[in-house]
Amino acid sequence: MAAIEPFRVMEIQEHANRLERAGRSIIHMEIGQPNFGAPTQVLNAATEAIHNRSLGYTGALGITELRKAIAHFYSQSFGATIPWERIVITAGASGALLLALGTLINAEDEVLMADPCYPCNRHFVRLFDGVPVAIPATGQQNYQLTLYDIQQHWTPKTRGVLIASPSNPTGTVIPADELGKIITWVRGHGGFVIVDEIYQSLVYEIAPETALSLSQDIHVVNSFSKYFGMTGWRLGWMVAPEHSIRDIEKLSQNLFICPSAPAQYAALAAFNVDTLSVLEERRLELQRRRDFLLPALRALGFSLPVKPQGAFYIYAGCERFGLGASEFVRHILEEAGVAITPGLDFGVSNAEKCVRFSYTRSMHELETGVGRLSRLPILRSAPPAKP
Amino acid sequence: MAAIEPFRVMEIQEHANRLERAGRSIIHMEIGQPNFGAPTQVLNAATEAIHNRSLGYTGALGITELRKAIAHFYSQSFGATIPWERIVITAGASGALLLALGTLINAEDEVLMADPCYPCNRHFVRLFDGVPVAIPATGQQNYQLTLYDIQQHWTPKTRGVLIASPSNPTGTVIPADELGKIITWVRGHGGFVIVDEIYQSLVYEIAPETALSLSQDIHVVNSFSKYFGMTGWRLGWMVAPEHSIRDIEKLSQNLFICPSAPAQYAALAAFNVDTLSVLEERRLELQRRRDFLLPALRALGFSLPVKPQGAFYIYAGCERFGLGASEFVRHILEEAGVAITPGLDFGVSNAEKCVRFSYTRSMHELETGVGRLSRLPILRSAPPAKP
Repeated sequence: MAAIEPFRVMEIQEHANRLERAGRSIIHMEIGQPNFGAPTQVLNAATEAIHNRSLGYTGALGITELRKAIAHFYSQSFGATIPWERIVITAGASGALLLALGTLINAEDEVLMADPCYPCNRHFVRLFDGVPVAIPATGQQNYQLTLYDIQQHWTPKTRGVLIASPSNPTGTVIPADELGKIITWVRGHGGFVIVDEIYQSLVYEIAPETALSLSQDIHVVNSFSKYFGMTGWRLGWMVAPEHSIRDIEKLSQNLFICPSAPAQYAALAAFNVDTLSVLEERRLELQRRRDFLLPALRALGFSLPVKPQGAFYIYAGCERFGLGASEFVRHILEEAGVAITPGLDFGVSNAEKCVRFSYTRSMHELETGVGRLSRLPILRSAPPAKP
Repeated sequence: MAAIEPFRVMEIQEHANRLERAGRSIIHMEIGQPNFGAPTQVLNAATEAIHNRSLGYTGALGITELRKAIAHFYSQSFGATIPWERIVITAGASGALLLALGTLINAEDEVLMADPCYPCNRHFVRLFDGVPVAIPATGQQNYQLTLYDIQQHWTPKTRGVLIASPSNPTGTVIPADELGKIITWVRGHGGFVIVDEIYQSLVYEIAPETALSLSQDIHVVNSFSKYFGMTGWRLGWMVAPEHSIRDIEKLSQNLFICPSAPAQYAALAAFNVDTLSVLEERRLELQRRRDFLLPALRALGFSLPVKPQGAFYIYAGCERFGLGASEFVRHILEEAGVAITPGLDFGVSNAEKCVRFSYTRSMHELETGVGRLSRLPILRSAPPAKP
């Protein structure tokens, strides 16, 4: 436990909430939760299930209808044929990662991942007494691991690789050909590949992809929280190789008994045509926010080596402003009422030079936040970034 | 993973479901889930929350209102003053046990528990590379651990004790004076005590109790699944010592982000006077079922060394019928269409001589099941039990 750090974003949020209670106005760009909530169709499906079903325990792998709906989604959206029996419904993507790593690693096993990456990835590996090996991934390489990185860090103790695409905190997508090479090489060396696709459908200007188009012999994690707006419902899923499903079922029975029944019935409405058209509107709104925020941050002097292609995050360098990132985050929260997340939540490589902006709040709020930052002396006195 | 067995009850259930699909009538006495569902008040609170709240992530420890409602419940029902900050809302009792053991044990730590006990207890300990030490607890000792047992099995590697009262699968309650002595001795030796009280309010002829009346320096696990009928909603809670809350919060952020938001708002209605009066009716119905089933099983020849005082289980010896318990369970499922759970789900001590009956289904079903058993040759030819 001593090795498990709190999410710094939570501390920032608490600090922001304290300031709000004291009467300050805060622009929240620290939160990884869109301001939309679950679509009406999902809410109605939940209400109907609550009044018409008994909502007892479901199977540990989830209800068959939802597993089939997800299989259909892969077929419709990606032309990928996934037998529904390989789809496991989970308590959020967190539950999926716990089940994947719980069935894949033992004490002292090493798991490779990018630095920066989602903070829990390290902690899940440590929970099972494994060793997370975070490989620095720079803006020059799109913040994603390359096959070369993996080959350089592979040891006899390495058991597998965790890839997130689009990535939190960087919003970058791994090129399909590189991912294909990684999967082939890692599987060839007896390792596992977990691909976190929880921001899969939140991509801009490019088409959504799934690693399942490249291989069936991997674990893919997904979620109803982000694209589908069901954050508080705690529902996700995983696609796993057929031979691993039995172990996953046993572990799920023990750790969770089953995923939330009301959430599962609600999620059945997530793939309706009507729901998907609402979600597409929301995606376009997120794209407009990205297209506003990215040049605005560049104009303020943040360094932005890549254009994020997905998720709802911008990972920006704050090195021009003369403060370490953690100090910088505190400074702009207190002086400008703008909450963002320091890089240290996501790793150590360059972390004190980087911060994460979320564009989960309305355009108006983003504009207000940018306006406030532009008036801060620390930003005004910094040299502008090169175009 | 190899060490994690499936719940045999799940296999029995699958077998029973297969028989049902083939047209057989099955009486389900294997399931640990009452046939009532969540009370109307809880369902209405859920619906209201779904349409009036955004249901985003909550704090990792749960919403303050629910934590306060639970504190009030302890004060009203048990006269126990528990600061609400020490109450942690969890993804079912499973989530609570995961957080408790995840923050309390390290690799190779030993944890003492009774055999028989809830099967996941062993698996949770193993998940963190700890060593579950299951101590045979016989009917003569009410299937509960004694201080003497604990002293006999305490080693330099022992880190703590897990007690369940009322217990699954035996329905027995640990005497408060024995539990008090255990807590004092174990805490005096630097160990932890986790008390599973998920069947706390489901007791018959005796008053519900909480170990928190004996000590504040323990972990107490509870659930909205059993007494409150919210099985599929996956919601529970834990009361923990103040100094451990920060670690629990960090682990919960990482493993779960937060418990289900709709379930939390629904559970706010669980403590209403109206709801509690519905739940009291249900408790009395369960008592009627126990009072029917217990003498009926004795008359059939099962051995019943103790009268269960709580939960909705009867742990019965089937040694008179000439088959091992696992074989016996298969036999009565196939020959009489009665599903029960073999002792091996709960431990190894005497496990092949014992089976668990659940009285979660209607009186009519229980009567039908008993009638079918009474006509089975294997039971008719057995010598009757002594009164």
